[in-house]
Amino acid sequence: MQRIQSIINDICPVDSTLAATGQAHLDNLTKPQGSLGRLEELALQLFLINNGNPPAPDPCRIYTVAGDHGVVAQGVSAAPQAVTRQMVLNFLNGGAGINALAATANAELRVVDAGVCGDDFPAHPALIRNKIAPGTADLSHGPAMSREQCLDALLLGAKLADSALADGVRTLGTGEMGIGNTTPSTALYCAYLNLDPEDVSGPGAGAPPEMVRRKAQVVRDGLHANRDAVESGDPLRILAALGGLEIATLTGMILKGAHNRQAICVDGFISTAAFVAAWRMNPAVADYCVLSHASAEPGHARAMQAMGLTPLLHLDMRLGEGTGAACAMFLLRAAAAIYNNMATFDQAGVSV
Amino acid sequence: MQRIQSIINDICPVDSTLAATGQAHLDNLTKPQGSLGRLEELALQLFLINNGNPPAPDPCRIYTVAGDHGVVAQGVSAAPQAVTRQMVLNFLNGGAGINALAATANAELRVVDAGVCGDDFPAHPALIRNKIAPGTADLSHGPAMSREQCLDALLLGAKLADSALADGVRTLGTGEMGIGNTTPSTALYCAYLNLDPEDVSGPGAGAPPEMVRRKAQVVRDGLHANRDAVESGDPLRILAALGGLEIATLTGMILKGAHNRQAICVDGFISTAAFVAAWRMNPAVADYCVLSHASAEPGHARAMQAMGLTPLLHLDMRLGEGTGAACAMFLLRAAAAIYNNMATFDQAGVSV
Repeated sequence: MQRIQSIINDICPVDSTLAATGQAHLDNLTKPQGSLGRLEELALQLFLINNGNPPAPDPCRIYTVAGDHGVVAQGVSAAPQAVTRQMVLNFLNGGAGINALAATANAELRVVDAGVCGDDFPAHPALIRNKIAPGTADLSHGPAMSREQCLDALLLGAKLADSALADGVRTLGTGEMGIGNTTPSTALYCAYLNLDPEDVSGPGAGAPPEMVRRKAQVVRDGLHANRDAVESGDPLRILAALGGLEIATLTGMILKGAHNRQAICVDGFISTAAFVAAWRMNPAVADYCVLSHASAEPGHARAMQAMGLTPLLHLDMRLGEGTGAACAMFLLRAAAAIYNNMATFDQAGVSV
Repeated sequence: MQRIQSIINDICPVDSTLAATGQAHLDNLTKPQGSLGRLEELALQLFLINNGNPPAPDPCRIYTVAGDHGVVAQGVSAAPQAVTRQMVLNFLNGGAGINALAATANAELRVVDAGVCGDDFPAHPALIRNKIAPGTADLSHGPAMSREQCLDALLLGAKLADSALADGVRTLGTGEMGIGNTTPSTALYCAYLNLDPEDVSGPGAGAPPEMVRRKAQVVRDGLHANRDAVESGDPLRILAALGGLEIATLTGMILKGAHNRQAICVDGFISTAAFVAAWRMNPAVADYCVLSHASAEPGHARAMQAMGLTPLLHLDMRLGEGTGAACAMFLLRAAAAIYNNMATFDQAGVSV
């Protein structure tokens, strides 16, 4: 706990007094001021993350973290739980959406077993084996994780950020795989942002309307069963009660990534739930995070609105795995290229 | 005219009977059906453009076409006309936004002088010198171009598409530079889509509100001065009357690109006006075009809505030059990677 608390406490907001310098540079490049829109905002964010040095988002690495969920026993997912394990193997064999998109985005991909049901996976160079538990408990009956499990997951995430840092990685991407994990994510949004389960519950990977209604009820049950945690307002306790092992791992990665001054591309619905947890622990994480895309999962827009944030891409994606983060990485690189490679009006002899 | 008319007539719509095959492949990849949203739509479009063969968007090339506009005499632009020429030199020196973004998107950049005021530019390996006229006439008083000039510009655009094809280029990007060219673009939207100048006029590169009002009046004057062309409904005559040399060149490029079965990333407000002209000449061009991004120029949304199209990116960009097209190229590549490199459920042993 002490380790995690000190990470949380030691996250420095970016130095906003540097913003004027970065903005002045952007405004002096050969384009109408602000005409590159969100790319300019990104460039400024990367400049601030880099503490007033030119944006440098590369190299990029995506961690796709997998975990299973006891709450699937409540019939909240269209896909069987075995798919979590099957998809991890698919990631390792290079056949999943995130493999295609990470390769296109020139991002390294690492797969993490933080809590998949069943035995350990065979060793693989792209796999980090760190199974904290073979899935969580059913959050609709009580805490999904013990406090210790949640702390272990947070520390695992911190270790992933540090390992990337040691390898020179400047931008992290969050990804996840876990059948049923829109349910804990929905519960976390409700608990952290005071939203209603009916407003946030959606079809996830393909639940029919009846199952979505059931999911909302299961979330409501979970909020009730864990009402002591929810009412405590303690973000870590809420995360343990309603989260998941992959979600808590991503929360730890976001916290330590921000602590390390790395840029973090937060993927979609589930990754954003991990972000909300980190943000409740220390709002300064937002300075380092890019909300990559607006998930097609309807509750995502509610959560974004509640936080006052606007995601970068609007591609109606809802796959997870880090696929939206991979797409956002291209835009970080584009933003950095603008900042670093465009001529100023003076250099180019262009009339202002 | 005969040459252009035969290009227009010979554009083949994609074979929509192939869509079921492409969709079946996408639906059999290891992801919930449709979960990659617009990337899946793009993948299917690229499959159809490639006549039922796997999507293959690379190599990509952006043509940034420059031209000047007589209508700047009406005080419709915040920047002086000399900036068109200055920016062409900036493109050739590698200092502009499009240079940074084309490089990031791994797209080749060619710059075209279709009608910049003043002398020819010095030779440069990235420059195509094909000045049809040193700027257009003032559209608020009469036709911006003669029919012959407009045909020459359309043929130039066709030549650009063909030259790219000869070099193996599979995806074209449209870009433009021309101080004042939101005014002819606005006039084209009004004429082709029956929109109101007040609803489509916006600040362009930075016109203050008073100038935007003036721009709307100038467009209204232009529609009146060219009412015979507008009322004729003849898309080519309307383009000559209200367009620009760079715009008509892009229209020709879009027509011939579609004729060549190349994919075409259409940039923002001005490029979309060139697209509308091509679309009015033969609606089948839409099969080959990707509307890259929603321009921050407010009239763009009106035009998109009038055509029933939804752009891909929403980044509040309004620079032109092809910068939005460059960003879209990454997504085309991402879409192709999904289609070509993901495993099927059977291959991966993942339960459906």
